[in-house]
Amino acid sequence: MKNIQRPTLLLDEQKCRKNILRATQKAQKHGLVFRPHFKTHQSAAVGEWFRSAGVSRIAVSSVSMAAYFAKAGWDDITVAFPVNWLEIEEINRLAKTIRLQLLVDSTETAAFLRQHLQHPAGIFIEIDSGQQRSGIPTADFPAINALLQQINTSEHLQFKGFLTHAGHTYQAGSVSQINEIHQSVQQQMQQLRQRYSGTFPGMIISAGDTPAFSQCHHFEGFDEVRPGNMVFYDAMQALAGSCSMSDIAVAVACPVVSTNANRSQVVVYGGAVHLSKDSAIALSGNPVFGLVVQLMSNGWSEPIPNTTVAALSQEHGIIQTTPDQLSNFQTGRLTGILPVHSCLTADLYSTYQSLTGEILPKFRTVL
Amino acid sequence: MKNIQRPTLLLDEQKCRKNILRATQKAQKHGLVFRPHFKTHQSAAVGEWFRSAGVSRIAVSSVSMAAYFAKAGWDDITVAFPVNWLEIEEINRLAKTIRLQLLVDSTETAAFLRQHLQHPAGIFIEIDSGQQRSGIPTADFPAINALLQQINTSEHLQFKGFLTHAGHTYQAGSVSQINEIHQSVQQQMQQLRQRYSGTFPGMIISAGDTPAFSQCHHFEGFDEVRPGNMVFYDAMQALAGSCSMSDIAVAVACPVVSTNANRSQVVVYGGAVHLSKDSAIALSGNPVFGLVVQLMSNGWSEPIPNTTVAALSQEHGIIQTTPDQLSNFQTGRLTGILPVHSCLTADLYSTYQSLTGEILPKFRTVL
Repeated sequence: MKNIQRPTLLLDEQKCRKNILRATQKAQKHGLVFRPHFKTHQSAAVGEWFRSAGVSRIAVSSVSMAAYFAKAGWDDITVAFPVNWLEIEEINRLAKTIRLQLLVDSTETAAFLRQHLQHPAGIFIEIDSGQQRSGIPTADFPAINALLQQINTSEHLQFKGFLTHAGHTYQAGSVSQINEIHQSVQQQMQQLRQRYSGTFPGMIISAGDTPAFSQCHHFEGFDEVRPGNMVFYDAMQALAGSCSMSDIAVAVACPVVSTNANRSQVVVYGGAVHLSKDSAIALSGNPVFGLVVQLMSNGWSEPIPNTTVAALSQEHGIIQTTPDQLSNFQTGRLTGILPVHSCLTADLYSTYQSLTGEILPKFRTVL
Repeated sequence: MKNIQRPTLLLDEQKCRKNILRATQKAQKHGLVFRPHFKTHQSAAVGEWFRSAGVSRIAVSSVSMAAYFAKAGWDDITVAFPVNWLEIEEINRLAKTIRLQLLVDSTETAAFLRQHLQHPAGIFIEIDSGQQRSGIPTADFPAINALLQQINTSEHLQFKGFLTHAGHTYQAGSVSQINEIHQSVQQQMQQLRQRYSGTFPGMIISAGDTPAFSQCHHFEGFDEVRPGNMVFYDAMQALAGSCSMSDIAVAVACPVVSTNANRSQVVVYGGAVHLSKDSAIALSGNPVFGLVVQLMSNGWSEPIPNTTVAALSQEHGIIQTTPDQLSNFQTGRLTGILPVHSCLTADLYSTYQSLTGEILPKFRTVL
C-alpha cells in the first residue's frame, strides 16, 4: 500500500466484481430483473463493472445521486426514496432526459406531482411490509386505491407497480428469522398482485434488501430486486451470515499512532469521521466499530482473531486486541479495518484507492 | 430559509459568537490561556470570529487540519492527536512556517521525531488522566522520564509541558460526576507540576474538555484549556447540562417527505449521512439521533416537546412525535434538527449556511 499517509478507503476490484457477478447470476437464475442499489458504492467507475456484467437499470437514494449517474450514462433509474417536493426542478430535468421512476406513499405527494411534473415518470407505490419506515401498509387498500386514483388521472404519472424495502431483515438475529421476514414480504406482495394485476397486468413488484437477497432461495412473487450492500458487503453482513469475511471488498487503511501493552490496545488514525459511528454488537455484548486485518501488497488478511475496533472518537480509533496479537501492530505502519456498515463508511470518502494504487472517484452526498 | 432543497447545515452566527465570547471570558477570568479546539467547526470563517474575540492560539485534530488553518493565517497550532509518522513531510513543512506543537506518548515516536524532524517544534507529553485512549498514565514516571530524556537530547524537540484530554467527562451521568473527574484531573496535573516544574519552570499544563470547561468553576493547576464543542454545543451537551438548548448554534434543515398519522411519525430527507450515527439515550431508554425544532426566518424554536429523531437509515430520518405535535410537520416543508454531536454532524458538510443565506466554507476531513 504505497503513498498512504492518512485514512484511505481501499477497494479490492476482484472481490467486488465477484460479488457483482454472484448477485447478477442469482437474480438471473430466479428470473428477476436485477436493479442494484448504487447508494453503497456511489461510483460511476464501479457502475461500469455492473454494466459489464449486463446491468442496465439501477436504484439510487437521492435525486442528486440520480443526476450523478444519469450524467455517467445510466438512463433507467429508480429513486428509491419518497419524493422530495423541494427538488421538483431537478426531478423534471431528469424526467425529461431519462427513464425515471419515483416513489410515492401519500395522496399529497401524488397531487403535488400531478400539478408539477412536466414529463412522464414511472411511479411506484411504496409499501411498508413491516419495516415501519415509509410506505403504505400492505393491507391499507383504501389508501392504495386513493393513490392509484390520483396517479391514473394524471398526465405524466405512469403507475409501475409496488415497491418495498424489507429493512427489518437487518434486525433479524438468525437466518431463519430472515427467511421468516422474507416469506411474510412475499405473501404481502402476493396479495397485492392478486388484487391489482387484473387492472394493471404489467405491474412490477420490486423488493430486495441485501440480507434476504443473499441468504434466501425463493423469490416467487417478486419481479425485480434492488440489493445494494452486496457490492462490498461488510462486517455486519458477514456476522449476519450474508457473506463470508473474504467477500468484503472494502477496507480502510489506517496509520497506527500508539500502542498500549498494558491494555493490549492500539490507537489508529481512523475515527468516527473515517469509519462512521455505526456499530454491531459482539458476542461479548460490547459494540464493534470494525474488524481488523493485516494489509498486504495484494489485499488484506482474514480478520485478526479476538481483535476489534472497540471505541471511536472523532479521529481516534481504539483497537482492542490480545497480548499475543499485539505484535501485529507497529506505530508508523498501516493496519486495515473492515467497516461494520460499508454504505456509511464509503459515504465519507470522495474516492476509492484500488489495490494497484488507482484512484476511483465517487459521488459525494454533501458537496 | 430560502433556496434550501436538500439537508443543509445552518449556523446561527449570533449564538455562535455568544458561545465564543462566553468561553473566552471564562478562560480569561480564570487566568487560563484559551486555545480553542477547531475540530468542531473546521472553518476559517468561524475562526475569524474567535480571532476578533482575541484568540491567537488554536488546537486541531489532524495535520491536514493544521495545514488548512495555517493557510488561513493561524501561526500557533497544537495538533492534539498522537504524531502520525506517515505525515512527517507535511509536519516538517508546518514546523518550518508556524509555531507548531505536537503530542508524543511513546519513546518510539520521540525517537522517530529526533531523527526526522527538520525544524523546531514544541512537544507536549500526552497524559492519560483516566480516559484510557492515548497518553501515558500520570503516575508512570519511568515512562515520562524516558520520554523527557529523548526529547531533551534532541535538536528540534522543545519540551512544552503536559497535555491531557479528560474525554471521560462525556460518559459522566451528572454535574457532580463531571466535577469529580475534573478534580481528579487537577490533582494528577498538580502531581506533574510538583515533580517537574523545578527542572522545567516554563512548562505548561494543558487540559480542557467541553463538559468540564463549561460546568466546573475551579481550574487551579491548569495553564491552558482547549475546549472545542462549546463553539456550537449540541443536544448531548444540553442534556448533560453544559449549555441550554438555546445556546445550540447549528441545526440541520431537512425536507419532510412523508408523515404517518397512525404512528405519529414523520420521515425527513436527513439520515445518517447528514446527521452522523451518534446518539444519546433518552429518559425512555431509547436512542435519540437529534432533537427537532421549527425553522423560522430568524433561526429556530426551542425543541418541540416529546419529539425526537428516533431512527436513521442512510438518507431517511424518522421523527417520533405525538398526535398533538404532528401538525408541526407538512410534507414539502423544512424542519430543523439539532444534532446530538455537532462535531460529527459538521464534519459531514463542506459549508455552513448562515441565517441570512450566506455560505461559509469549511475544511473537509476527507477531500
